[in-house]
Amino acid sequence: MKDKLLMDEMLEMGRQVLTAQPFSMLIGAELIGFAVGSAELKVPIKNELKQQHGFLHGGVVSYAADNALTYVGGSVLGPGVVTSEFKINYVRPAMGDYIVARATAIYVGKTQAVCRCDVFAVKDAKESLCATAQGTITKIGSSQ
Amino acid sequence: MKDKLLMDEMLEMGRQVLTAQPFSMLIGAELIGFAVGSAELKVPIKNELKQQHGFLHGGVVSYAADNALTYVGGSVLGPGVVTSEFKINYVRPAMGDYIVARATAIYVGKTQAVCRCDVFAVKDAKESLCATAQGTITKIGSSQ
Amino acid sequence: MKDKLLMDEMLEMGRQVLTAQPFSMLIGAELIGFAVGSAELKVPIKNELKQQHGFLHGGVVSYAADNALTYVGGSVLGPGVVTSEFKINYVRPAMGDYIVARATAIYVGKTQAVCRCDVFAVKDAKESLCATAQGTITKIGSSQ
Amino acid sequence: MKDKLLMDEMLEMGRQVLTAQPFSMLIGAELIGFAVGSAELKVPIKNELKQQHGFLHGGVVSYAADNALTYVGGSVLGPGVVTSEFKINYVRPAMGDYIVARATAIYVGKTQAVCRCDVFAVKDAKESLCATAQGTITKIGSSQ
Repeated sequence: MKDKLLMDEMLEMGRQVLTAQPFSMLIGAELIGFAVGSAELKVPIKNELKQQHGFLHGGVVSYAADNALTYVGGSVLGPGVVTSEFKINYVRPAMGDYIVARATAIYVGKTQAVCRCDVFAVKDAKESLCATAQGTITKIGSSQ
Repeated sequence: MKDKLLMDEMLEMGRQVLTAQPFSMLIGAELIGFAVGSAELKVPIKNELKQQHGFLHGGVVSYAADNALTYVGGSVLGPGVVTSEFKINYVRPAMGDYIVARATAIYVGKTQAVCRCDVFAVKDAKESLCATAQGTITKIGSSQ
Repeated sequence: MKDKLLMDEMLEMGRQVLTAQPFSMLIGAELIGFAVGSAELKVPIKNELKQQHGFLHGGVVSYAADNALTYVGGSVLGPGVVTSEFKINYVRPAMGDYIVARATAIYVGKTQAVCRCDVFAVKDAKESLCATAQGTITKIGSSQ
Repeated sequence: MKDKLLMDEMLEMGRQVLTAQPFSMLIGAELIGFAVGSAELKVPIKNELKQQHGFLHGGVVSYAADNALTYVGGSVLGPGVVTSEFKINYVRPAMGDYIVARATAIYVGKTQAVCRCDVFAVKDAKESLCATAQGTITKIGSSQ
Protein backbone atom coordinates (compact mmCIF):
# COMPACT_ATOMS: atom_id res chain seq x y z
CA MET A 1 0.00 0.00 0.00
CA LYS A 2 2.80 2.38 0.91
CA ASP A 3 4.76 1.27 -2.16
CA LYS A 4 1.69 1.89 -4.30
CA LEU A 5 1.50 5.43 -2.95
CA LEU A 6 5.19 6.01 -3.66
CA MET A 7 4.79 4.68 -7.19
CA ASP A 8 1.80 6.93 -7.76
CA GLU A 9 3.81 9.91 -6.49
CA MET A 10 6.77 9.02 -8.67
CA LEU A 11 4.58 8.67 -11.75
CA GLU A 12 2.91 11.98 -10.94
CA MET A 13 6.30 13.71 -10.61
CA GLY A 14 7.46 12.15 -13.88
CA ARG A 15 4.34 13.39 -15.63
CA GLN A 16 4.92 16.94 -14.40
CA VAL A 17 8.41 16.86 -15.95
CA LEU A 18 6.95 15.62 -19.24
CA THR A 19 4.32 18.35 -19.20
CA ALA A 20 7.15 20.86 -18.77
CA GLN A 21 8.74 19.64 -22.05
CA PRO A 22 7.03 21.58 -24.86
CA PHE A 23 8.34 19.10 -27.47
CA SER A 24 6.85 16.12 -25.62
CA MET A 25 3.52 17.95 -25.49
CA LEU A 26 3.75 18.79 -29.21
CA ILE A 27 4.25 15.08 -29.94
CA GLY A 28 1.53 14.03 -27.51
CA ALA A 29 3.74 11.77 -25.39
CA GLU A 30 2.34 10.29 -22.19
CA LEU A 31 4.26 8.70 -19.31
CA ILE A 32 2.32 5.53 -18.51
CA GLY A 33 4.79 3.81 -16.18
CA PHE A 34 7.57 5.08 -13.91
CA ALA A 35 9.21 3.17 -11.08
CA VAL A 36 12.76 2.64 -9.83
CA GLY A 37 14.50 0.93 -12.76
CA SER A 38 11.70 1.15 -15.33
CA ALA A 39 9.90 3.73 -17.43
CA GLU A 40 7.20 3.47 -20.08
CA LEU A 41 6.33 6.20 -22.56
CA LYS A 42 3.42 6.17 -25.02
CA VAL A 43 3.16 8.19 -28.23
CA PRO A 44 0.07 8.16 -30.47
CA ILE A 45 0.68 7.41 -34.15
CA LYS A 46 -1.07 10.44 -35.58
CA ASN A 47 -0.77 11.92 -39.05
CA GLU A 48 1.47 14.88 -38.23
CA LEU A 49 4.10 12.50 -36.78
CA LYS A 50 4.47 10.41 -39.95
CA GLN A 51 7.00 10.30 -42.76
CA GLN A 52 6.30 10.18 -46.49
CA HIS A 53 5.27 6.49 -46.62
CA GLY A 54 2.63 6.76 -43.91
CA PHE A 55 4.69 5.20 -41.11
CA LEU A 56 5.57 6.94 -37.87
CA HIS A 57 8.71 9.01 -38.50
CA GLY A 58 11.90 7.41 -37.20
CA GLY A 59 12.60 10.66 -35.39
CA VAL A 60 9.52 10.07 -33.22
CA VAL A 61 10.62 6.52 -32.47
CA SER A 62 14.09 7.71 -31.45
CA TYR A 63 12.56 10.57 -29.40
CA ALA A 64 10.49 7.99 -27.49
CA ALA A 65 13.52 5.72 -26.92
CA ASP A 66 15.74 8.64 -25.89
CA ASN A 67 13.17 10.12 -23.51
CA ALA A 68 12.28 6.76 -21.92
CA LEU A 69 16.02 6.16 -21.41
CA THR A 70 16.36 9.53 -19.67
CA TYR A 71 13.39 8.72 -17.44
CA VAL A 72 14.67 5.33 -16.38
CA GLY A 73 18.11 6.83 -15.76
CA GLY A 74 16.52 9.48 -13.56
CA SER A 75 14.57 6.79 -11.69
CA VAL A 76 17.83 5.24 -10.49
CA LEU A 77 20.20 8.25 -10.37
CA GLY A 78 17.75 10.86 -9.08
CA PRO A 79 16.40 13.92 -10.91
CA GLY A 80 18.65 16.10 -13.06
CA VAL A 81 19.90 13.65 -15.66
CA VAL A 82 20.46 13.69 -19.41
CA THR A 83 20.97 11.05 -22.08
CA SER A 84 24.68 11.37 -22.92
CA GLU A 85 24.59 8.94 -25.81
CA PHE A 86 22.47 6.16 -27.21
CA LYS A 87 22.29 3.74 -30.10
CA ILE A 88 19.11 2.60 -31.78
CA ASN A 89 18.33 -0.19 -34.24
CA TYR A 90 15.10 0.22 -36.17
CA VAL A 91 13.71 -3.22 -36.99
CA ARG A 92 10.23 -2.61 -38.43
CA PRO A 93 8.26 0.40 -39.69
CA ALA A 94 6.08 1.69 -36.84
CA MET A 95 2.39 1.64 -37.73
CA GLY A 96 -0.81 1.13 -35.79
CA ASP A 97 -2.45 3.05 -32.98
CA TYR A 98 0.49 4.11 -30.84
CA ILE A 99 4.02 3.18 -29.79
CA VAL A 100 5.20 2.25 -26.33
CA ALA A 101 8.85 2.70 -25.31
CA ARG A 102 9.83 0.52 -22.35
CA ALA A 103 13.17 1.26 -20.71
CA THR A 104 15.04 -0.57 -17.97
CA ALA A 105 18.29 0.14 -16.12
CA ILE A 106 21.02 -2.44 -16.77
CA TYR A 107 23.77 -0.96 -14.64
CA VAL A 108 23.72 1.89 -12.14
CA GLY A 109 26.90 3.69 -11.11
CA LYS A 110 27.38 6.82 -9.01
CA THR A 111 26.78 9.34 -11.78
CA GLN A 112 25.93 7.22 -14.82
CA ALA A 113 23.52 4.45 -15.67
CA VAL A 114 23.51 2.15 -18.70
CA CYS A 115 19.95 1.51 -19.84
CA ARG A 116 18.02 -0.26 -22.57
CA CYS A 117 14.76 0.48 -24.29
CA ASP A 118 12.48 -1.54 -26.55
CA VAL A 119 9.93 0.34 -28.63
CA PHE A 120 6.78 -1.49 -29.68
CA ALA A 121 4.14 -0.46 -32.18
CA VAL A 122 0.66 -1.38 -30.97
CA LYS A 123 -2.29 -2.06 -33.25
CA ASP A 124 -5.56 -3.43 -31.87
CA ALA A 125 -3.70 -4.23 -28.63
CA LYS A 126 -1.17 -6.41 -30.50
CA GLU A 127 2.44 -5.35 -29.99
CA SER A 128 5.34 -5.68 -32.41
CA LEU A 129 8.89 -4.56 -31.75
CA CYS A 130 9.88 -1.66 -33.99
CA ALA A 131 13.17 -0.54 -32.45
CA THR A 132 15.62 -1.31 -29.68
CA ALA A 133 18.06 1.09 -28.04
CA GLN A 134 20.92 1.17 -25.52
CA GLY A 135 22.51 4.21 -23.96
CA THR A 136 24.18 6.09 -21.12
CA ILE A 137 22.31 8.44 -18.79
CA THR A 138 24.40 10.93 -16.79
CA LYS A 139 23.73 13.19 -13.84
CA ILE A 140 23.88 16.82 -14.97
CA GLY A 141 27.12 18.53 -14.04
CA SER A 142 28.90 15.33 -13.15
CA SER A 143 30.81 14.22 -16.16
CA GLN A 144 30.95 16.56 -19.07
CA MET B 1 27.16 24.96 -64.97
CA LYS B 2 25.64 21.57 -65.72
CA ASP B 3 26.72 20.35 -62.29
CA LYS B 4 25.09 23.35 -60.72
CA LEU B 5 21.84 22.46 -62.46
CA LEU B 6 22.06 18.87 -61.28
CA MET B 7 22.71 20.00 -57.73
CA ASP B 8 19.76 22.35 -57.86
CA GLU B 9 17.56 19.53 -59.15
CA MET B 10 18.79 17.18 -56.47
CA LEU B 11 18.15 19.72 -53.73
CA GLU B 12 14.69 20.38 -55.17
CA MET B 13 13.89 16.64 -55.17
CA GLY B 14 15.18 16.31 -51.61
CA ARG B 15 13.00 19.19 -50.50
CA GLN B 16 9.92 17.59 -52.03
CA VAL B 17 10.58 14.45 -49.98
CA LEU B 18 10.95 16.53 -46.82
CA THR B 19 7.70 18.35 -47.56
CA ALA B 20 6.04 14.95 -47.85
CA GLN B 21 7.09 14.13 -44.26
CA PRO B 22 4.43 15.60 -41.96
CA PHE B 23 6.73 15.27 -38.92
CA SER B 24 9.50 17.25 -40.63
CA MET B 25 6.97 19.96 -41.45
CA LEU B 26 5.69 19.95 -37.86
CA ILE B 27 9.25 20.51 -36.65
CA GLY B 28 9.97 23.11 -39.32
CA ALA B 29 12.98 21.31 -40.82
CA GLU B 30 14.54 22.66 -44.00
CA LEU B 31 16.95 20.91 -46.36
CA ILE B 32 19.64 23.47 -47.08
CA GLY B 33 22.22 21.27 -48.81
CA PHE B 34 22.00 18.02 -50.76
CA ALA B 35 24.64 16.61 -53.07
CA VAL B 36 26.17 13.19 -53.73
CA GLY B 37 27.80 12.30 -50.40
CA SER B 38 26.55 15.20 -48.31
CA ALA B 39 23.33 16.53 -46.82
CA GLU B 40 22.56 19.48 -44.58
CA LEU B 41 19.36 19.92 -42.59
CA LYS B 42 18.34 23.00 -40.59
CA VAL B 43 15.85 23.11 -37.71
CA PRO B 44 14.82 26.33 -35.95
CA ILE B 45 15.15 26.36 -32.14
CA LYS B 46 11.60 27.43 -31.35
CA ASN B 47 9.75 27.15 -28.07
CA GLU B 48 7.57 24.17 -28.88
CA LEU B 49 10.68 22.09 -29.65
CA LYS B 50 12.32 22.61 -26.26
CA GLN B 51 12.61 20.55 -23.10
CA GLN B 52 12.00 21.67 -19.51
CA HIS B 53 15.28 23.61 -19.12
CA GLY B 54 14.80 25.78 -22.21
CA PHE B 55 17.20 23.88 -24.48
CA LEU B 56 16.22 22.21 -27.73
CA HIS B 57 14.88 18.75 -26.87
CA GLY B 58 17.37 15.95 -27.51
CA GLY B 59 14.68 14.24 -29.56
CA VAL B 60 14.84 17.09 -32.07
CA VAL B 61 18.62 16.86 -32.25
CA SER B 62 18.44 13.10 -32.88
CA TYR B 63 15.64 13.61 -35.44
CA ALA B 64 17.91 16.02 -37.32
CA ALA B 65 20.88 13.64 -37.19
CA ASP B 66 18.76 10.64 -38.21
CA ASN B 67 17.10 12.46 -41.09
CA ALA B 68 20.33 13.99 -42.39
CA LEU B 69 21.87 10.50 -42.27
CA THR B 70 18.97 9.11 -44.31
CA TYR B 71 19.37 11.91 -46.86
CA VAL B 72 23.08 11.43 -47.33
CA GLY B 73 22.54 7.67 -47.60
CA GLY B 74 19.94 8.28 -50.30
CA SER B 75 22.34 10.60 -52.11
CA VAL B 76 24.79 7.73 -52.65
CA LEU B 77 22.49 4.69 -52.76
CA GLY B 78 19.57 6.21 -54.67
CA PRO B 79 16.05 6.94 -53.43
CA GLY B 80 14.18 4.48 -51.25
CA VAL B 81 16.44 4.20 -48.21
CA VAL B 82 15.98 4.07 -44.45
CA THR B 83 18.24 4.57 -41.47
CA SER B 84 18.71 1.02 -40.11
CA GLU B 85 20.59 2.06 -37.02
CA PHE B 86 22.54 4.96 -35.65
CA LYS B 87 24.40 6.08 -32.55
CA ILE B 88 24.49 9.61 -31.24
CA ASN B 89 26.62 11.36 -28.62
CA TYR B 90 25.18 14.59 -27.24
CA VAL B 91 28.02 16.89 -26.26
CA ARG B 92 26.40 20.25 -25.43
CA PRO B 93 22.87 21.50 -24.80
CA ALA B 94 21.52 22.94 -28.06
CA MET B 95 20.56 26.59 -27.74
CA GLY B 96 20.59 29.60 -30.04
CA ASP B 97 18.78 30.35 -33.28
CA TYR B 98 18.77 27.01 -35.06
CA ILE B 99 20.66 23.74 -35.46
CA VAL B 100 22.33 22.43 -38.60
CA ALA B 101 22.91 18.70 -39.11
CA ARG B 102 25.68 17.98 -41.63
CA ALA B 103 26.00 14.40 -42.83
CA THR B 104 28.60 12.75 -45.04
CA ALA B 105 28.97 9.25 -46.46
CA ILE B 106 31.99 7.36 -45.13
CA TYR B 107 31.53 4.08 -46.98
CA VAL B 108 29.15 3.13 -49.77
CA GLY B 109 28.32 -0.50 -50.50
CA LYS B 110 25.77 -2.01 -52.86
CA THR B 111 22.79 -1.75 -50.52
CA GLN B 112 24.17 -0.06 -47.41
CA ALA B 113 26.14 3.06 -46.62
CA VAL B 114 27.89 4.01 -43.39
CA CYS B 115 27.50 7.72 -42.71
CA ARG B 116 28.34 10.34 -40.12
CA CYS B 117 26.59 13.48 -39.00
CA ASP B 118 27.66 16.43 -36.87
CA VAL B 119 24.95 18.65 -35.41
CA PHE B 120 25.80 22.26 -34.65
CA ALA B 121 23.82 24.82 -32.69
CA VAL B 122 24.05 28.25 -34.30
CA LYS B 123 23.67 31.52 -32.40
CA ASP B 124 24.42 34.86 -34.08
CA ALA B 125 26.11 32.93 -36.91
CA LYS B 126 28.52 31.24 -34.44
CA GLU B 127 28.43 27.44 -34.54
CA SER B 128 29.08 25.03 -31.69
CA LEU B 129 28.95 21.25 -31.94
CA CYS B 130 26.07 19.83 -29.93
CA ALA B 131 25.99 16.21 -31.10
CA THR B 132 27.72 13.72 -33.37
CA ALA B 133 26.24 10.58 -34.90
CA GLN B 134 27.22 7.53 -36.95
CA GLY B 135 24.90 5.04 -38.60
CA THR B 136 23.91 2.64 -41.36
CA ILE B 137 21.55 3.57 -44.19
CA THR B 138 19.95 0.71 -46.13
CA LYS B 139 18.04 0.42 -49.39
CA ILE B 140 14.44 -0.51 -48.66
CA GLY B 141 13.71 -4.17 -49.32
CA SER B 142 17.33 -5.17 -49.56
CA SER B 143 18.41 -6.37 -46.19
CA GLN B 144 15.77 -6.73 -43.58
CA MET C 1 15.84 -36.42 -26.84
CA LYS C 2 15.93 -35.53 -30.51
CA ASP C 3 16.22 -31.85 -29.59
CA LYS C 4 19.10 -32.68 -27.29
CA LEU C 5 20.89 -34.40 -30.18
CA LEU C 6 20.29 -31.40 -32.44
CA MET C 7 21.63 -29.06 -29.79
CA ASP C 8 24.70 -31.19 -29.31
CA GLU C 9 25.27 -31.20 -33.07
CA MET C 10 24.81 -27.45 -33.30
CA LEU C 11 27.23 -26.84 -30.43
CA GLU C 12 29.72 -29.21 -32.05
CA MET C 13 29.46 -27.35 -35.38
CA GLY C 14 29.87 -24.02 -33.61
CA ARG C 15 32.97 -25.27 -31.85
CA GLN C 16 34.52 -26.36 -35.12
CA VAL C 17 34.08 -22.84 -36.47
CA LEU C 18 35.70 -21.40 -33.35
CA THR C 19 38.62 -23.81 -33.66
CA ALA C 20 39.08 -22.57 -37.23
CA GLN C 21 39.57 -19.00 -35.94
CA PRO C 22 43.25 -18.67 -35.02
CA PHE C 23 42.55 -15.49 -33.01
CA SER C 24 39.90 -17.24 -30.89
CA MET C 25 42.39 -20.03 -30.21
CA LEU C 26 45.10 -17.50 -29.31
CA ILE C 27 42.72 -15.94 -26.79
CA GLY C 28 41.57 -19.32 -25.49
CA ALA C 29 37.87 -18.77 -26.18
CA GLU C 30 35.43 -21.63 -25.72
CA LEU C 31 31.87 -21.93 -27.02
CA ILE C 32 29.88 -23.25 -24.05
CA GLY C 33 26.35 -22.77 -25.35
CA PHE C 34 24.83 -22.56 -28.83
CA ALA C 35 21.19 -22.98 -29.73
CA VAL C 36 18.71 -21.20 -32.01
CA GLY C 37 18.57 -17.66 -30.63
CA SER C 38 21.31 -17.92 -28.02
CA ALA C 39 25.09 -18.28 -27.79
CA GLU C 40 27.49 -18.33 -24.87
CA LEU C 41 31.23 -17.78 -25.15
CA LYS C 42 33.78 -18.16 -22.34
CA VAL C 43 37.24 -16.56 -22.19
CA PRO C 44 39.73 -17.21 -19.37
CA ILE C 45 41.15 -14.13 -17.62
CA LYS C 46 44.81 -14.97 -18.04
CA ASN C 47 47.80 -12.68 -17.75
CA GLU C 48 48.56 -12.23 -21.43
CA LEU C 49 45.02 -10.90 -22.00
CA LYS C 50 45.27 -8.09 -19.45
CA GLN C 51 45.91 -4.34 -19.66
CA GLN C 52 48.32 -2.28 -17.57
CA HIS C 53 46.18 -2.24 -14.39
CA GLY C 54 45.76 -6.00 -14.16
CA PHE C 55 42.21 -6.15 -15.53
CA LEU C 56 41.17 -8.06 -18.63
CA HIS C 57 41.82 -5.79 -21.62
CA GLY C 58 38.69 -4.11 -22.99
CA GLY C 59 39.66 -5.48 -26.39
CA VAL C 60 39.11 -9.02 -25.09
CA VAL C 61 35.73 -8.07 -23.65
CA SER C 62 34.66 -6.53 -26.97
CA TYR C 63 36.05 -9.54 -28.88
CA ALA C 64 33.85 -11.82 -26.73
CA ALA C 65 30.77 -9.64 -27.23
CA ASP C 66 31.37 -9.32 -30.97
CA ASN C 67 31.98 -13.04 -31.48
CA ALA C 68 28.99 -14.11 -29.34
CA LEU C 69 26.86 -11.68 -31.37
CA THR C 70 28.07 -13.27 -34.61
CA TYR C 71 27.29 -16.75 -33.26
CA VAL C 72 23.78 -15.91 -32.17
CA GLY C 73 23.17 -14.19 -35.51
CA GLY C 74 24.35 -17.34 -37.30
CA SER C 75 22.07 -19.45 -35.12
CA VAL C 76 19.01 -17.67 -36.52
CA LEU C 77 20.16 -16.65 -40.02
CA GLY C 78 22.18 -19.73 -40.90
CA PRO C 79 25.95 -20.03 -41.39
CA GLY C 80 27.93 -17.41 -43.28
CA VAL C 81 27.26 -14.29 -41.26
CA VAL C 82 29.30 -11.35 -40.01
CA THR C 83 28.83 -8.68 -37.38
CA SER C 84 28.15 -5.52 -39.43
CA GLU C 85 28.17 -3.17 -36.48
CA PHE C 86 27.84 -3.19 -32.73
CA LYS C 87 27.91 -0.88 -29.75
CA ILE C 88 29.32 -1.78 -26.35
CA ASN C 89 29.10 -0.13 -22.94
CA TYR C 90 31.78 -1.18 -20.45
CA VAL C 91 30.36 -0.95 -16.95
CA ARG C 92 32.96 -2.56 -14.66
CA PRO C 93 36.59 -3.65 -15.01
CA ALA C 94 36.66 -7.38 -15.81
CA MET C 95 38.54 -9.39 -13.19
CA GLY C 96 38.25 -12.87 -11.76
CA ASP C 97 38.55 -16.31 -13.30
CA TYR C 98 36.90 -15.88 -16.70
CA ILE C 99 34.29 -13.92 -18.60
CA VAL C 100 31.12 -15.26 -20.18
CA ALA C 101 29.45 -13.46 -23.08
CA ARG C 102 25.76 -14.36 -23.46
CA ALA C 103 24.05 -13.24 -26.63
CA THR C 104 20.40 -13.44 -27.70
CA ALA C 105 18.56 -12.54 -30.90
CA ILE C 106 16.10 -9.67 -30.49
CA TYR C 107 14.84 -9.43 -34.06
CA VAL C 108 15.39 -11.73 -37.03
CA GLY C 109 14.85 -10.50 -40.59
CA LYS C 110 15.63 -12.18 -43.91
CA THR C 111 19.28 -11.23 -44.08
CA GLN C 112 19.92 -9.35 -40.83
CA ALA C 113 19.37 -9.95 -37.14
CA VAL C 114 19.55 -7.47 -34.28
CA CYS C 115 21.12 -9.09 -31.23
CA ARG C 116 22.21 -8.26 -27.70
CA CYS C 117 25.02 -9.55 -25.54
CA ASP C 118 25.79 -9.23 -21.84
CA VAL C 119 29.33 -9.98 -20.71
CA PHE C 120 29.86 -11.16 -17.13
CA ALA C 121 33.08 -11.52 -15.19
CA VAL C 122 33.03 -14.64 -13.02
CA LYS C 123 35.03 -15.03 -9.81
CA ASP C 124 34.49 -18.02 -7.51
CA ALA C 125 31.28 -18.76 -9.46
CA LYS C 126 29.89 -15.28 -8.69
CA GLU C 127 28.95 -13.28 -11.79
CA SER C 128 29.06 -9.51 -12.25
CA LEU C 129 28.12 -7.65 -15.40
CA CYS C 130 31.13 -6.01 -17.01
CA ALA C 131 29.75 -4.94 -20.40
CA THR C 132 26.64 -4.94 -22.53
CA ALA C 133 26.43 -4.78 -26.31
CA GLN C 134 23.90 -4.47 -29.14
CA GLY C 135 24.53 -5.00 -32.83
CA THR C 136 23.52 -6.10 -36.31
CA ILE C 137 24.52 -9.45 -37.80
CA THR C 138 24.30 -9.81 -41.58
CA LYS C 139 24.39 -12.73 -44.02
CA ILE C 140 27.57 -12.53 -46.06
CA GLY C 141 26.99 -11.20 -49.56
CA SER C 142 23.52 -9.94 -48.83
CA SER C 143 23.83 -6.34 -47.91
CA GLN C 144 27.19 -4.74 -48.33
CA MET D 1 61.88 22.22 -32.10
CA LYS D 2 60.50 22.29 -28.57
CA ASP D 3 57.19 20.97 -29.87
CA LYS D 4 59.00 18.16 -31.61
CA LEU D 5 60.68 17.20 -28.33
CA LEU D 6 57.32 17.26 -26.52
CA MET D 7 55.77 15.09 -29.20
CA ASP D 8 58.62 12.63 -28.99
CA GLU D 9 58.22 12.51 -25.21
CA MET D 10 54.48 12.02 -25.48
CA LEU D 11 54.88 9.21 -28.02
CA GLU D 12 57.53 7.61 -25.79
CA MET D 13 55.20 7.74 -22.77
CA GLY D 14 52.34 6.30 -24.82
CA ARG D 15 54.56 3.44 -25.97
CA GLN D 16 55.48 2.61 -22.39
CA VAL D 17 51.80 2.29 -21.53
CA LEU D 18 51.26 0.02 -24.53
CA THR D 19 54.22 -2.13 -23.52
CA ALA D 20 52.62 -2.47 -20.08
CA GLN D 21 49.50 -4.01 -21.68
CA PRO D 22 50.18 -7.73 -22.08
CA PHE D 23 47.26 -8.11 -24.52
CA SER D 24 48.61 -5.36 -26.80
CA MET D 25 52.00 -7.12 -26.78
CA LEU D 26 50.33 -10.48 -27.56
CA ILE D 27 48.65 -8.88 -30.58
CA GLY D 28 51.82 -7.04 -31.63
CA ALA D 29 50.30 -3.56 -31.55
CA GLU D 30 52.54 -0.54 -32.05
CA LEU D 31 51.78 3.11 -31.26
CA ILE D 32 53.01 5.02 -34.30
CA GLY D 33 51.52 8.44 -33.60
CA PHE D 34 50.45 10.23 -30.42
CA ALA D 35 49.83 13.95 -30.03
CA VAL D 36 47.21 16.12 -28.35
CA GLY D 37 43.98 15.19 -30.13
CA SER D 38 45.28 12.33 -32.27
CA ALA D 39 46.54 8.77 -31.89
CA GLU D 40 47.61 6.14 -34.40
CA LEU D 41 47.92 2.45 -33.65
CA LYS D 42 49.31 -0.23 -35.99
CA VAL D 43 48.62 -3.96 -35.83
CA PRO D 44 50.25 -6.50 -38.16
CA ILE D 45 47.89 -8.88 -40.01
CA LYS D 46 49.51 -12.13 -38.95
CA ASN D 47 48.06 -15.61 -39.07
CA GLU D 48 47.26 -16.03 -35.39
CA LEU D 49 45.06 -12.91 -35.51
CA LYS D 50 42.80 -14.16 -38.30
CA GLN D 51 39.34 -15.69 -38.42
CA GLN D 52 38.24 -18.79 -40.35
CA HIS D 53 38.14 -17.10 -43.80
CA GLY D 54 41.69 -15.77 -43.65
CA PHE D 55 40.78 -12.16 -42.82
CA LEU D 56 41.91 -10.32 -39.70
CA HIS D 57 39.45 -11.19 -36.92
CA GLY D 58 36.89 -8.46 -36.21
CA GLY D 59 37.94 -8.66 -32.57
CA VAL D 60 41.40 -7.37 -33.54
CA VAL D 61 39.90 -4.53 -35.55
CA SER D 62 37.68 -3.52 -32.62
CA TYR D 63 40.62 -3.86 -30.20
CA ALA D 64 42.59 -1.42 -32.39
CA ALA D 65 39.70 1.04 -32.59
CA ASP D 66 38.98 0.80 -28.86
CA ASN D 67 42.62 1.24 -27.86
CA ALA D 68 43.25 4.13 -30.28
CA LEU D 69 40.12 5.79 -28.86
CA THR D 70 41.45 5.40 -25.32
CA TYR D 71 44.80 6.88 -26.37
CA VAL D 72 43.33 9.91 -28.05
CA GLY D 73 41.03 10.44 -25.06
CA GLY D 74 44.07 10.31 -22.77
CA SER D 75 45.88 12.80 -25.00
CA VAL D 76 43.23 15.43 -24.28
CA LEU D 77 42.02 14.47 -20.78
CA GLY D 78 45.33 13.43 -19.27
CA PRO D 79 46.44 9.94 -18.21
CA GLY D 80 44.12 7.59 -16.36
CA VAL D 81 41.25 7.20 -18.80
CA VAL D 82 39.10 4.34 -20.06
CA THR D 83 36.81 3.82 -23.03
CA SER D 84 33.33 3.90 -21.47
CA GLU D 85 31.50 2.93 -24.61
CA PHE D 86 31.99 2.82 -28.35
CA LYS D 87 30.24 1.83 -31.53
CA ILE D 88 31.93 0.33 -34.57
CA ASN D 89 30.78 -0.29 -38.14
CA TYR D 90 32.80 -2.86 -40.06
CA VAL D 91 32.75 -1.95 -43.74
CA ARG D 92 35.26 -4.29 -45.42
CA PRO D 93 37.13 -7.47 -44.44
CA ALA D 94 40.60 -6.49 -43.21
CA MET D 95 43.37 -8.08 -45.27
CA GLY D 96 46.84 -7.07 -46.33
CA ASP D 97 49.99 -6.31 -44.38
CA TYR D 98 48.70 -4.43 -41.34
CA ILE D 99 45.92 -2.22 -40.07
CA VAL D 100 46.21 1.35 -38.83
CA ALA D 101 43.65 2.82 -36.42
CA ARG D 102 43.58 6.63 -36.50
CA ALA D 103 41.64 8.35 -33.75
CA THR D 104 40.79 12.01 -33.22
CA ALA D 105 39.02 13.91 -30.45
CA ILE D 106 35.74 15.51 -31.53
CA TYR D 107 34.69 17.06 -28.24
CA VAL D 108 36.59 17.46 -24.97
CA GLY D 109 34.78 18.07 -21.69
CA LYS D 110 36.08 18.13 -18.13
CA THR D 111 36.02 14.40 -17.54
CA GLN D 112 34.84 12.93 -20.85
CA ALA D 113 35.82 13.19 -24.49
CA VAL D 114 33.90 12.05 -27.56
CA CYS D 115 36.27 10.61 -30.14
CA ARG D 116 36.26 8.94 -33.54
CA CYS D 117 38.47 6.34 -35.10
CA ASP D 118 38.90 5.09 -38.66
CA VAL D 119 40.62 1.76 -39.19
CA PHE D 120 42.41 1.16 -42.48
CA ALA D 121 43.83 -2.07 -43.88
CA VAL D 122 47.11 -1.47 -45.65
CA LYS D 123 48.44 -3.66 -48.47
CA ASP D 124 51.52 -2.62 -50.46
CA ALA D 125 51.19 0.86 -48.93
CA LYS D 126 47.62 1.22 -50.28
CA GLU D 127 45.02 1.95 -47.62
CA SER D 128 41.37 0.94 -47.58
CA LEU D 129 38.89 1.74 -44.83
CA CYS D 130 37.78 -1.39 -42.99
CA ALA D 131 35.94 0.03 -39.99
CA THR D 132 34.88 3.26 -38.35
CA ALA D 133 34.12 3.85 -34.68
CA GLN D 134 32.81 6.54 -32.31
CA GLY D 135 32.92 6.50 -28.53
CA THR D 136 33.23 8.13 -25.14
CA ILE D 137 36.47 8.19 -23.14
CA THR D 138 36.21 8.94 -19.42
CA LYS D 139 38.67 9.87 -16.68
CA ILE D 140 38.95 6.99 -14.22
CA GLY D 141 37.01 7.61 -11.01
CA SER D 142 35.08 10.54 -12.40
CA SER D 143 31.82 9.25 -13.69
CA GLN D 144 30.97 5.68 -12.93
